[in-house]
Amino acid sequence: MMIEKLVIASANKGKLTEIQTLLSPLNIAVFPQSDFNVVEAPEPHCTFIENALSKARHASLATSMPALADDSGLCIAALNGEPGVQSAYFAGKPSNDVNNNVHLIKTLDGLENRAAYYYCCLVLVRKHDDPQPLIAEGIWHGSILKEARGSNGFGYDPLFLDDITGKAAAELSPEIKNKISHRGQALRKMLHLIEHLTD
Amino acid sequence: MMIEKLVIASANKGKLTEIQTLLSPLNIAVFPQSDFNVVEAPEPHCTFIENALSKARHASLATSMPALADDSGLCIAALNGEPGVQSAYFAGKPSNDVNNNVHLIKTLDGLENRAAYYYCCLVLVRKHDDPQPLIAEGIWHGSILKEARGSNGFGYDPLFLDDITGKAAAELSPEIKNKISHRGQALRKMLHLIEHLTD
Repeated sequence: MMIEKLVIASANKGKLTEIQTLLSPLNIAVFPQSDFNVVEAPEPHCTFIENALSKARHASLATSMPALADDSGLCIAALNGEPGVQSAYFAGKPSNDVNNNVHLIKTLDGLENRAAYYYCCLVLVRKHDDPQPLIAEGIWHGSILKEARGSNGFGYDPLFLDDITGKAAAELSPEIKNKISHRGQALRKMLHLIEHLTD
Repeated sequence: MMIEKLVIASANKGKLTEIQTLLSPLNIAVFPQSDFNVVEAPEPHCTFIENALSKARHASLATSMPALADDSGLCIAALNGEPGVQSAYFAGKPSNDVNNNVHLIKTLDGLENRAAYYYCCLVLVRKHDDPQPLIAEGIWHGSILKEARGSNGFGYDPLFLDDITGKAAAELSPEIKNKISHRGQALRKMLHLIEHLTD
């Protein structure tokens, strides 16, 4: 089953832009789920994979198209992996990037161990009841800054210091971020899986 | 979090033997869930990954240990991927290898397209609510014979003709089967993930 079109099961504009950019090498027509008035799916699970599957399945069922979903988050060693799957709602609902970053600064105030990683799990279902969803993961290691830096990206990017470049994720150009980020890694793996799909 | 002991969330003796053999290079104490009187977990899902996760989580919750589960099946092109996640119950419940093989011979009687693959999804949870389970997959391509051959292995092995060796899976020695099978591939990937685990 070749994939000719794909709905992206996300309403997050930052994610949508990154995913659409990284999928552009494929000859696949890509649509955000908002084009079909698909509402947000529930994300009730304790695992990234199940939340991503829930979102992908929901979008595929509503559109009768293959669907790709992302569930991702920031995992902080000193917080035993929190906020993790709850990253979007660290400071409460509705999700708000500024409030989340402020809450993170306060939560880690005075802590020595700033180690953290961004994790991304992508799931692609070819149909809503696809028994073998394509799954791709990515991890981006870094640490949490005490003050925000940069204005690119989204989420916790202003506080996430990349280990390799020594820059905050929000200081990186979209091109560089896509090369090294958790989502970039996962999307390149997903491209490989899509290209090698056989019946 | 290093893994020092692991419960295998399966009551299938064929699976247990293959998994214990393939995990033996690791310095991990491996126990079948029957050692702890863990009963079979429900497998209600339409995906292998969710059923494997359900089994692993169930065993980890019952034992407070990391747990590894396998969900696998035979996917037949001419049957649109069936029996798939229902492979164990193709001829009804309770699961019976002979009845399943007989049912498969009858179902494919007269069909030209015999293409099939075995698929295996392994999931390892470090705790029952592990947000990032380790996931490893394997696929073994072949076709379905018209008559059973060989007496090794289990499941549909007597009817599953391996593309490469030209032998039925049940004609292969355990050593050769573990080298090429869906479960062998997935377990080698899982070993790699376990060896590279970081906090």
